Amino acid sequence: MSKALEFEILHKDAKTKARKGRITTLHGSIETPVFMPVGTQATVKAMKPESVEDTGAQIILANTYHLMLRPGSDIVREAGGLHKFMNWNKPILTDSGGYQVFSLGAMRKITEEGVRFASHIDGSRHMLSPERSIEVQNDLGSDIIMAFDECAPKDASREYIERSQARTTRWLERCIEAHRNTDTQSLFGIMQGGFYKDLREESAREIVKFDLPGYAIGGISVGEKKEEFVEVLDYAPDLLPEDKPRYVMGIGTPDYIFESVERGVDMFDCVEPTRIARHGMAMTSEGRLSIKNARFERDFGPLDPKCDCYTCRTYSRAYLRHLFKEGETLSQMLLSEHNLRFLSHMCENIRTAIDEDRFTEYKRDFYSRYYNEET
Amino acid sequence: MSKALEFEILHKDAKTKARKGRITTLHGSIETPVFMPVGTQATVKAMKPESVEDTGAQIILANTYHLMLRPGSDIVREAGGLHKFMNWNKPILTDSGGYQVFSLGAMRKITEEGVRFASHIDGSRHMLSPERSIEVQNDLGSDIIMAFDECAPKDASREYIERSQARTTRWLERCIEAHRNTDTQSLFGIMQGGFYKDLREESAREIVKFDLPGYAIGGISVGEKKEEFVEVLDYAPDLLPEDKPRYVMGIGTPDYIFESVERGVDMFDCVEPTRIARHGMAMTSEGRLSIKNARFERDFGPLDPKCDCYTCRTYSRAYLRHLFKEGETLSQMLLSEHNLRFLSHMCENIRTAIDEDRFTEYKRDFYSRYYNEET
Repeated sequence: MSKALEFEILHKDAKTKARKGRITTLHGSIETPVFMPVGTQATVKAMKPESVEDTGAQIILANTYHLMLRPGSDIVREAGGLHKFMNWNKPILTDSGGYQVFSLGAMRKITEEGVRFASHIDGSRHMLSPERSIEVQNDLGSDIIMAFDECAPKDASREYIERSQARTTRWLERCIEAHRNTDTQSLFGIMQGGFYKDLREESAREIVKFDLPGYAIGGISVGEKKEEFVEVLDYAPDLLPEDKPRYVMGIGTPDYIFESVERGVDMFDCVEPTRIARHGMAMTSEGRLSIKNARFERDFGPLDPKCDCYTCRTYSRAYLRHLFKEGETLSQMLLSEHNLRFLSHMCENIRTAIDEDRFTEYKRDFYSRYYNEET
Repeated sequence: MSKALEFEILHKDAKTKARKGRITTLHGSIETPVFMPVGTQATVKAMKPESVEDTGAQIILANTYHLMLRPGSDIVREAGGLHKFMNWNKPILTDSGGYQVFSLGAMRKITEEGVRFASHIDGSRHMLSPERSIEVQNDLGSDIIMAFDECAPKDASREYIERSQARTTRWLERCIEAHRNTDTQSLFGIMQGGFYKDLREESAREIVKFDLPGYAIGGISVGEKKEEFVEVLDYAPDLLPEDKPRYVMGIGTPDYIFESVERGVDMFDCVEPTRIARHGMAMTSEGRLSIKNARFERDFGPLDPKCDCYTCRTYSRAYLRHLFKEGETLSQMLLSEHNLRFLSHMCENIRTAIDEDRFTEYKRDFYSRYYNEET
C-alpha cells in the first residue's frame, strides 16, 4: 500500500464513537475530525491562501470536473501541480468529478466505460471514466484522490442502485489499476448503496478488500434530510475499517458535522461556509446571522465576540454591514474568512472535547447556543 | 494656520520643476510625489488594508459623496472616524463630494447656497453645500479635506467659468468658516478657471490669500486630452505657493503623473489602477497587459518579472489568467494589489530620480519601456 498517507487514532471518546486522530501526508499532517474548505477552481473563493491558512484550515478540496475543463489538468501539471499552481503548500484532496458529471442530467450519458458529457461552460464533449478521472487527479498531484463512482439519483429503484453499486466496484478496480502515483497520492474508495443497509454492507465488503488508505461514505450528503442522513450514518461508518480515515462528502453545517463525528467520521467538506458568506450570512457562536440586518447599522462590536479571526479582531458589524450593502468585495473576503475560522475553531473544540471524553457535553452546549435548543 | 500638516521640500530636480518632498500629518508622513489609491466607500476595492499598505501606499482617498449617503457620516463618526471604521491607520484624504454631485447632471440644481441633488442610489433628496461638505468631512476625520468647489462643465462659456470661479472663492470662505477640526484636519483649496490662463491666475490669487496648508488644481483631470491637460499644467502649478503641496485630482496613468511631476505637482489619485485590475488589465514594466490573452495560457512566469509585489512573487501568469477567465474574485484581489504596487514603485523611482537630478532621464527610460516609445 501507499506510504503517502498514515492515519493514527489518538483518542476515542468514552461515550460515543467519536474519535480524534491524525492523518499524515507528504504535505503535512491533519488533525481529525477536520473540516476541509472547498477551493473548486484552484482558489477558495475570495481568499488568499494565506488567509485560508490563518483560519486554521489544514487541508482543502479542489474539484476535478472544473479543473479538467479549465484550465485543463495538463496546464496544472506543467505548472508543477496544484499545490504550486495555487500557492497552497498543505494537503489537498480532489474529488473524482463524478458528482458533477452525474448532476448534469440530460447533458450526460452513462455507460460501462464511463460518462460522456457536455461541458456546462461551452457544451464541448468530454468523457470522464475511472481512468480519465485518475489521470486528471494524477496531473493535479493532490495528496488524496477519490475513486470515480456513480452517484445514483435520489429516486433510483433498488434494482438501479444494485447495478450502479456493482459498477462502482468495477470502476474502483479500474481506478486502482490506472493510479500512477501511489507513492505520493492516496486513493480513497467510496461506499455506495443508497438507503439500503444490505447494499451498504455489500458495497463496504467489496471496497474494503482493496485495503485502500481511506474510505468515503457516498450518496448521503447534499440535500439529504437529516433523519435519512443519520439513518445511514448509524451503521455505515462501522462497516469501514476502524484504522482508516472516514470521509463524508459535502457536509458543512454544524449539525451534520456533529452527527457524523459522533458516529465515527473524520473528514468533511462543503462550499456552504464560503457560499453563505458571499450572501452576507455569518456563522457565529450564537447561531447564524445576516449582516445586512438593520439592527447592525450602528453596532460597533465584532461580528462574533467569541471569535479570534482576523475579521472579528479588526472590524465592526457596522462596517461589515456597510460593505455588504455596498456590494464591496471586501465583504465576501471578510465573511468567508470568518466562516471558515468558525468551522475550524469548532473542529478544534470537537477534538479537545473528544480528548477529554466530553464530546456529548460539548455537542449539547454548542447546539444550545447555535440552534437555541433547550437542553 | 493648522499644525496638522507640514510640508518640506527635500530636493528639487536640477533640470525640471519636479520636487521631492515630505508631508507630515498626525497619521504619519508621506513622501512626495505620491500616488494615492482610492477607497471610495471606505474600502480600496477587493483589498484588505494590510495589502494596500504592502503596496507601499502612504495615503488613500475616500469619497465624501458616497460616504454621506451610505453608511452616513454620522455612523462613521460614531464608529470613531474613518481610520478606525475601515482599519487604515495612515493618512486619509477626502474629496468634497463636489465632483460627484456636479456629475449628476439633471439630478442636481446649483444655487449660491450649494447643490440640491437626488441620490444615485434611491433618488432621495439631499443638499451638499460648503458647510455640509465640511461637516461630513469633519465627521469622517480624514487628515486632508478638500474645499467644496464647482466643477464647471467642459463646454461652459468663459462667462460661466468666471461666475463659477467667483462662487468657488465665496464657497471656500464658507468652508474655512465651517471647518471645526483645524487642529487635526487640513483643508486644501482648489484652483479653477478652466483653460483660461487669466482666470486661473485670478483664482490662484484669491485662494492663496487664505494661506491654506495645500492646494489642488481643479478641472483638468478625468477625460482631458493630454495636450489640454499639459497646457494648463505648464503654468498652473507656478501660480500656487512653492512651499505648499500641490495636488491634481483624478489622474492615475503614468504619463499624466510624469507630466504633472515634471511641472511641480506632488499628489495625485485615481481609481484607474484598481478599476482596470478588475477588468484583467495589469500595468507592468513593459506596458499594459491583458491577463486574459491566450498567450499566457502556459506562461508560468510572473506577471511582471521586475515587480516585487505579493502577486508577482507568488503566482504565475497562467494562474492569474485562469482566475480571471473563471471570474474568480482572487483575480481582482491579486491584480489590484499588483497595479497599486506598480504605481507606488514608480513613484519611489521618481523620488529617487529627483533626488539624483535625473528625473528627465528616468521619465524617458520609463516611457520607452511602458509606451514602447522611441527616444
